[in-house]
Amino acid sequence: MKASDYRDWSPASVREIIRSGEWTAPTPGMCAGHVQANMIVLPKDWAYDFMVFAQRNPTPCPILDITEPGGKEARIMAPGSDVAKDIPRYRVWKDGLLVDEPTDVSSYWKDDLVAFLLGCSFSFESALMEAGIPIRHIEENRNVPMYVTSIQCRPAGRLSGPMVVSMRPIPASQVPRAVLCTGRFPGVHGAPVHVGDPEAIGIKDISKPDFGDSVTIKPGEVPVFWGCGVTPQAALMASKPPFAITHAPGHMMILDPKDSDLAVF
Amino acid sequence: MKASDYRDWSPASVREIIRSGEWTAPTPGMCAGHVQANMIVLPKDWAYDFMVFAQRNPTPCPILDITEPGGKEARIMAPGSDVAKDIPRYRVWKDGLLVDEPTDVSSYWKDDLVAFLLGCSFSFESALMEAGIPIRHIEENRNVPMYVTSIQCRPAGRLSGPMVVSMRPIPASQVPRAVLCTGRFPGVHGAPVHVGDPEAIGIKDISKPDFGDSVTIKPGEVPVFWGCGVTPQAALMASKPPFAITHAPGHMMILDPKDSDLAVF
Repeated sequence: MKASDYRDWSPASVREIIRSGEWTAPTPGMCAGHVQANMIVLPKDWAYDFMVFAQRNPTPCPILDITEPGGKEARIMAPGSDVAKDIPRYRVWKDGLLVDEPTDVSSYWKDDLVAFLLGCSFSFESALMEAGIPIRHIEENRNVPMYVTSIQCRPAGRLSGPMVVSMRPIPASQVPRAVLCTGRFPGVHGAPVHVGDPEAIGIKDISKPDFGDSVTIKPGEVPVFWGCGVTPQAALMASKPPFAITHAPGHMMILDPKDSDLAVF
Repeated sequence: MKASDYRDWSPASVREIIRSGEWTAPTPGMCAGHVQANMIVLPKDWAYDFMVFAQRNPTPCPILDITEPGGKEARIMAPGSDVAKDIPRYRVWKDGLLVDEPTDVSSYWKDDLVAFLLGCSFSFESALMEAGIPIRHIEENRNVPMYVTSIQCRPAGRLSGPMVVSMRPIPASQVPRAVLCTGRFPGVHGAPVHVGDPEAIGIKDISKPDFGDSVTIKPGEVPVFWGCGVTPQAALMASKPPFAITHAPGHMMILDPKDSDLAVF
């Protein structure tokens, strides 16, 4: 089976397939039209700092759901879920270092952990496509290119770090439409943070993303940058909390709501 | 001096006048076009619960700024401010009961207090007026009518309570425009939560608001309801944290940004 075979499955059914260990690959293309989320799990002691960090940096860190301390269910957006098993691949972090990439983190779970589910730009990509705007990384069957920028997030408590952005090349004439299209979705990064001129935000070589894959930028296209849910992982690397779990890039948590539920209008 | 005499003053100058004790009255009309905010102050121990409560109920509780624990400066939206002195009148709560309404809460301040500043619907009223939509409570020189509804907020930790809404009567033909106008401002309550039929949200007598003043509803006008920043005060009354401070209704904290800075488009 490939991801697109699960296109019309319900989020609960696909979470079950993932929970059973049957699916360990990236999730784009599964449950078309439903929200896919980034995850970051921190000890309760760090959770307040993260909440403030997210409030001060809502563009890269739009919180969609929060588990009870020690609990594993995303009750509001995925009733019946188990956030320790329902993501195909995780990353486990100790003191800011990546130490494991398992497909189930139940054995790592502790009573003081809180999971935050964050909006992901996959949610607005269908709106862009419906508006006739090409999504290059989908056309080229790659992961979206992501870059660590020189834009510093506003710090909060012990958390700080640079903003990570995702990039999509957009034909110059369609840039305004792409801005308006995505501005409707503030819960999933919203409008771009930067249009054109990669160097102005510290990106030296657009062909070498820090995460994901490089994509073709055609003549007449402008690189457009959106806040990215990998930003918390950059904050982990910079701020080194003793313990954290995140999703592995591209391996998202699929939630029950539809992307369109997150549009403000 | 009356509020409108301070219409063109800068937020920092008006905060100074308030800090000196010279101004202890409501703030609508001061610093036209600048954001006015609700405030709720809680011990750090309760602050996490409040952050989650606000995340789950963003319409009535849109957080704009958060002080450092024990700090008194709203660094992002009001550099140089002192949240314990820069509001004309406060409310002090013990175990969910209102115990004092002073004009300065410095003597109540403790090292573990965190202040949350929340968006207020005053910010979108200028947008409504610019769109030619009447604001009855301003025309009648009263406070906006507010009602405790039967809509329960999503609980978070130890915090729960009903949603409080503000009401503006809008000519039926202008309701769509009022919805679109305010939908641009999700950081200050956004689009209405309910249009018409007060009984459906538990309001038995529209002429008897729970907070603020009653206003005239003319023939052909529909009562339109927006999420209200007094909701946290209702949660305090219901959830009884040992200690809290809020602004007194209508006596807001004036912040540096302009209302238009909070529009998403």
